[in-house]
Amino acid sequence: MENAKKHLLTEIDIFKAMDKESLASLLSHTSVFLRAKGTMLCMAGEDAQHIYVVLSGWVKIYRETSGGAEAVLDVITTGAYFGEDTIFDGGLYLSNAEVIADAEIAAIPSALIKENVEKNQDFTKALLGHMSRKQKAKEHDVEHLSVQSAPQRIGCFLLRLAGGNSFKNVSFDLPYDKTLIAARLGMQPETFSRALTKLRNEAGVEITGTKVKIDEVERLSTYTCGACSSEFPCKDTKK
Amino acid sequence: MENAKKHLLTEIDIFKAMDKESLASLLSHTSVFLRAKGTMLCMAGEDAQHIYVVLSGWVKIYRETSGGAEAVLDVITTGAYFGEDTIFDGGLYLSNAEVIADAEIAAIPSALIKENVEKNQDFTKALLGHMSRKQKAKEHDVEHLSVQSAPQRIGCFLLRLAGGNSFKNVSFDLPYDKTLIAARLGMQPETFSRALTKLRNEAGVEITGTKVKIDEVERLSTYTCGACSSEFPCKDTKK
Repeated sequence: MENAKKHLLTEIDIFKAMDKESLASLLSHTSVFLRAKGTMLCMAGEDAQHIYVVLSGWVKIYRETSGGAEAVLDVITTGAYFGEDTIFDGGLYLSNAEVIADAEIAAIPSALIKENVEKNQDFTKALLGHMSRKQKAKEHDVEHLSVQSAPQRIGCFLLRLAGGNSFKNVSFDLPYDKTLIAARLGMQPETFSRALTKLRNEAGVEITGTKVKIDEVERLSTYTCGACSSEFPCKDTKK
Repeated sequence: MENAKKHLLTEIDIFKAMDKESLASLLSHTSVFLRAKGTMLCMAGEDAQHIYVVLSGWVKIYRETSGGAEAVLDVITTGAYFGEDTIFDGGLYLSNAEVIADAEIAAIPSALIKENVEKNQDFTKALLGHMSRKQKAKEHDVEHLSVQSAPQRIGCFLLRLAGGNSFKNVSFDLPYDKTLIAARLGMQPETFSRALTKLRNEAGVEITGTKVKIDEVERLSTYTCGACSSEFPCKDTKK
């Protein structure tokens, strides 16, 4: 199983840019493991020995304020990774990472990433490209938190899940629970509930339990994407 | 004047990491110019030919939504730069940049930055470090927009201006106008006004016109930084 799973790594942007030999060496030093829901992968302030890649399942990236509130910065799944931003700045994780749905994780030694930057041009450029894209995704978050209303932020989240195509009548399941979706979108649970009612009335989105039903993707995108600098369907940002 | 101003560039993180010869070549291809308030430096979607460094004055980085709203992502001053994230991903500016207080700007050809990544290890690592820090700053923005109240976000903004030291009775001027500060902090002007009243009553901050008076920095930091994952005074994030 482990080797099959490791193969997933070769499809990730920055590792695609490695020569065969370096990649083989990197994979031989990478461990793959299964972690149950509730497991902490790392805590803010810890020495960042590894880059973690999610091979399956879901991982919540968050911070705690000294007052005890939780700020959810991201919720990531297959193909996403974190920790690469610690290698060239400080060497400590800045966020907590918790498994929220049983997950297979690959742990790549940070030292090997650094070594590859030193010897491999293409890898380095791919890493710089990746960091640029990650920064853009965060800028999108800032933009949305600044100018979108709560129902529009939920609408955007749902449109990404719907895959960005202009279908009528799309149905799917929410990927993780509503409280966490609310937190990821920077809103209180009460705000989230009120926003769902508004989304139903104004954009034809029905959410029952974990089931989502979008009457018309175009109606929802008109409602949501008017408050965004990207056009629908958006290409540039990650899910 | 121009050469004196160019010298400022040698104090910037990523250029410090260049060897003398490369830096001299970079500076010889860099132009420095003065731009009046209201000038656009670049528009989203334009070919990113240059990295722009602010040598003096203030520049607003923002996007427009298709509905016409403005999302202010950053307001930057001396020593800050933008456009470096376009070089390895897409090559187009993703935001508009407008001079909001007469500014001296250095324009460095993007091609030269790329060339230096190809030949200079230390520069590349410095650039990766810089991008990591920029991403962290954006993550802080997301955190604050998610968990801080409006008065707390303003409190954080003022504490950074106050320099992060635990003085009693600090006074200073706001760096740019209140409408823009509100937008940069992701709030409506009305929310901003209400928040100022709350800050006066609950944290001893008096703002009259452009004058800010903080009675006790410690009182304000207690009020503000309880809703943040960093401790006061914060080291890691930029102003």
